[in-house]
Amino acid sequence: MKLALERGFYFPSCEIYSDSQAGFWEYGPTGLSLKNKFLELWRRELVRRDQMIEIDGSQIMSRSVFEASGHLESFADPIVKCTGCGATFRADRMISEAGGLEIPENAGLEEFDQAILQNGIRCAKCGHDLGPARRFNMMFRVGIGPDGEEAYLRPETCQSIFVDFPRIFKTMRGRLPLGIAQAGKSFRNEISPRQSLLRLREFYQAEIEVFCNPANLNDLEKFARLQDTVIRIQTGTEPKAMTCREAVQSGAVPSEFVAYYLGMLAEFYQKTGIDMERSRFRRLGDKEKAFYAEAAFDFEVETTTGWLELVACNYRSDYDLGCHARKSKEKFEVMDGDQKVLPHVFEISMGIDRSLYTILEHSLRDDRENERTVLSIVPYLAPVHVGVLSLVKKGGLREKTDEVFDSLKTKVDAFLDHSGAIGRRYRRLDEIGVPYALTVDHQTLEDGTVTIRERDSMEQRRIRLADVTGEITGLVSFP
Amino acid sequence: MKLALERGFYFPSCEIYSDSQAGFWEYGPTGLSLKNKFLELWRRELVRRDQMIEIDGSQIMSRSVFEASGHLESFADPIVKCTGCGATFRADRMISEAGGLEIPENAGLEEFDQAILQNGIRCAKCGHDLGPARRFNMMFRVGIGPDGEEAYLRPETCQSIFVDFPRIFKTMRGRLPLGIAQAGKSFRNEISPRQSLLRLREFYQAEIEVFCNPANLNDLEKFARLQDTVIRIQTGTEPKAMTCREAVQSGAVPSEFVAYYLGMLAEFYQKTGIDMERSRFRRLGDKEKAFYAEAAFDFEVETTTGWLELVACNYRSDYDLGCHARKSKEKFEVMDGDQKVLPHVFEISMGIDRSLYTILEHSLRDDRENERTVLSIVPYLAPVHVGVLSLVKKGGLREKTDEVFDSLKTKVDAFLDHSGAIGRRYRRLDEIGVPYALTVDHQTLEDGTVTIRERDSMEQRRIRLADVTGEITGLVSFP
Repeated sequence: MKLALERGFYFPSCEIYSDSQAGFWEYGPTGLSLKNKFLELWRRELVRRDQMIEIDGSQIMSRSVFEASGHLESFADPIVKCTGCGATFRADRMISEAGGLEIPENAGLEEFDQAILQNGIRCAKCGHDLGPARRFNMMFRVGIGPDGEEAYLRPETCQSIFVDFPRIFKTMRGRLPLGIAQAGKSFRNEISPRQSLLRLREFYQAEIEVFCNPANLNDLEKFARLQDTVIRIQTGTEPKAMTCREAVQSGAVPSEFVAYYLGMLAEFYQKTGIDMERSRFRRLGDKEKAFYAEAAFDFEVETTTGWLELVACNYRSDYDLGCHARKSKEKFEVMDGDQKVLPHVFEISMGIDRSLYTILEHSLRDDRENERTVLSIVPYLAPVHVGVLSLVKKGGLREKTDEVFDSLKTKVDAFLDHSGAIGRRYRRLDEIGVPYALTVDHQTLEDGTVTIRERDSMEQRRIRLADVTGEITGLVSFP
Repeated sequence: MKLALERGFYFPSCEIYSDSQAGFWEYGPTGLSLKNKFLELWRRELVRRDQMIEIDGSQIMSRSVFEASGHLESFADPIVKCTGCGATFRADRMISEAGGLEIPENAGLEEFDQAILQNGIRCAKCGHDLGPARRFNMMFRVGIGPDGEEAYLRPETCQSIFVDFPRIFKTMRGRLPLGIAQAGKSFRNEISPRQSLLRLREFYQAEIEVFCNPANLNDLEKFARLQDTVIRIQTGTEPKAMTCREAVQSGAVPSEFVAYYLGMLAEFYQKTGIDMERSRFRRLGDKEKAFYAEAAFDFEVETTTGWLELVACNYRSDYDLGCHARKSKEKFEVMDGDQKVLPHVFEISMGIDRSLYTILEHSLRDDRENERTVLSIVPYLAPVHVGVLSLVKKGGLREKTDEVFDSLKTKVDAFLDHSGAIGRRYRRLDEIGVPYALTVDHQTLEDGTVTIRERDSMEQRRIRLADVTGEITGLVSFP
């Protein structure tokens, strides 16, 4: 957190004002650069590799969308408000923490009231009585035009994918199975946002909805490519590593279709550099999963805050397209061969902010031996690819260094640094995960070579100036 | 517009529902791909080239931000509502259209009422009387948390840059002049959104705020790099081409500092492929420009809808940092050498949606001779870089084509197409601006070569399969 704040990864929004609100954060330059690269990797490894289609929809959407999706009625937390100090709490969490009672968040309101009464639960802040439980819808409402017509900030990016499906399928000459992807902002008016990027009111999602013919879930030609990919699945108490094929054969995953996308997701996260030995796909039980989900797997990673859900994978059947078809009277069926079908949906819903947090946490090393903090981030995701340093500013070294920097700056993310002791400059680069540093010294002017230093090993070697661009772009390019 | 709708560039949001609202659009796959590449070019040519810093801030911001910036009080249109049908109009536009009278939008409300009364102006829709003029604030309000604390969707991206300035300058070890950039969504509750991407309620901006020491506006070392760049400046009735140096010397542009950024912007738009002969920097008169702007230039381009403003360049003095410093009591002064200074700001505020619209319009060619519609978009901005086609599916050509496609698909934006007459497939690629097509035919299996077809000239030549990746990535890479 300290590193994030002091090195430009992320920091609270509107922090200079006293009415700044919890759950809103800004990405600084290093955090944004990491996010952009993470999204590029997502595009390469999931969207392009699987020939998916990507769209970018409005964040403000009409009331009808959320009537159809059920969010207007059901996307609400049970809350209670203190009659004394006015603090508001999630009813289920407060009862769990104060009384040790587990009431599901979708229980009837009278259940919360009873539990509070019977257990004498009072305000955790001031000790006063609590008011009656009520439902608080987590969508942000906005009014459009002078009459303030009702609309909402989307609570998930996928709704535009569903609503746009008929046009996209037709204009893009779609064929099942078809993945449609979207990365962008979503908004949830959380009662208790968690610290930093873990539970935000305004956050980034990357969602993929794969539309498929439910009759063909075990007849997937491309499954062959990923059948030997290892995924770690938790069905009992411990995650167990197995290939995608074994997962299907053992019944741990219900179909080749689902196993294919879990495998693809595992390969993607492997490439982000997070420690996959501390990851698992956890199959959700009937009580945990959403009512429309026929099978649900959370991709979770162990962090210092416990197991963190980075991706929710849900087989949502025809719930979404069915809702919108009924409400809009629009045609959502498509032809698959000579069969007319209302496609089913498999969703891969990724939390971007949480993924970035995990990458940072898993990369952070306290290298005491060398008295430095290192972000050992994979080179192609590093916020800055290369530092370009002058050993000293004098004797023409500054100008030579500027030349090297200018030749690199539009091709990769380069950072120019002339000032301070060279060791201190290297350590500053290590802290933001810069994988390579080039140093121009007196020998450079004599023989046209520079030092290249590698972040993790701290090893240095000399390369020719003529090779710098080729070498650096090669080292930091996506795999 | 027809092409945009039918080929996945953009289309109305929530179009399947009757309560869909004007001014909200979705980018389809081709439009999004164009937008991503446009932003990458912006990053290369402006942000990285000038060593700027880029951030990504919250879209929902606290009330205090807009109290300080003046938006809460002043970011409001004068409107009148019909007492009969309830339609709402911009008061100034209605009076101008119906009565030919020009009342500035920031005039007192009684001026609008008087003009309506004296000229007998009535509802343009139903002919009934109009109610009294009132101010309508164009910001969207949202309520945070269960008590609905007042916050707003930002009406411009730059406010986070101003609010975050103290932290960014410190943690990034900034030095003046320092450019801080942000690309993202902004929101304005327009009374009358215009068709398609030209005036949206939810839109993309790319804004750059260059913080500078006002004492050094004509002492800019890097001006030398752009002094010979040609810009077209309109001070009288016609745009006149001149170098940046001539613009400063003739007084058309007030300083080297401002001329440098106008030159950089001209070079950027040149590379987007829009016709610069139909562009101009128009210096705004005292009545047109914002009250805080000491000098203002709009970058405008001629389109079928008239001159369209793509970028607003404003020298905003210390207005913004001053406002936030007074309201927050935070320190916004920084050291420049040994001088303590409250930085001045030069703003380059770019409308992304409008820029994309202009690129599409300027690229669209009706090539009647060859019976085709062509989007002659520059290759590095093309939504799809390369089409990969099989001449026929049989005789192993399908498999060979899939192989070629697989070798390209994560490296560039490739599109695989097996079906339909080859001529029709070429024309479909031409319509979405695909600059190159590779066709696998029987000869491919014999001698390992494929046909490469160039979109604009329609010329075809053969290249070796082994050279495909290198050739295509070279042809579509950024300049």
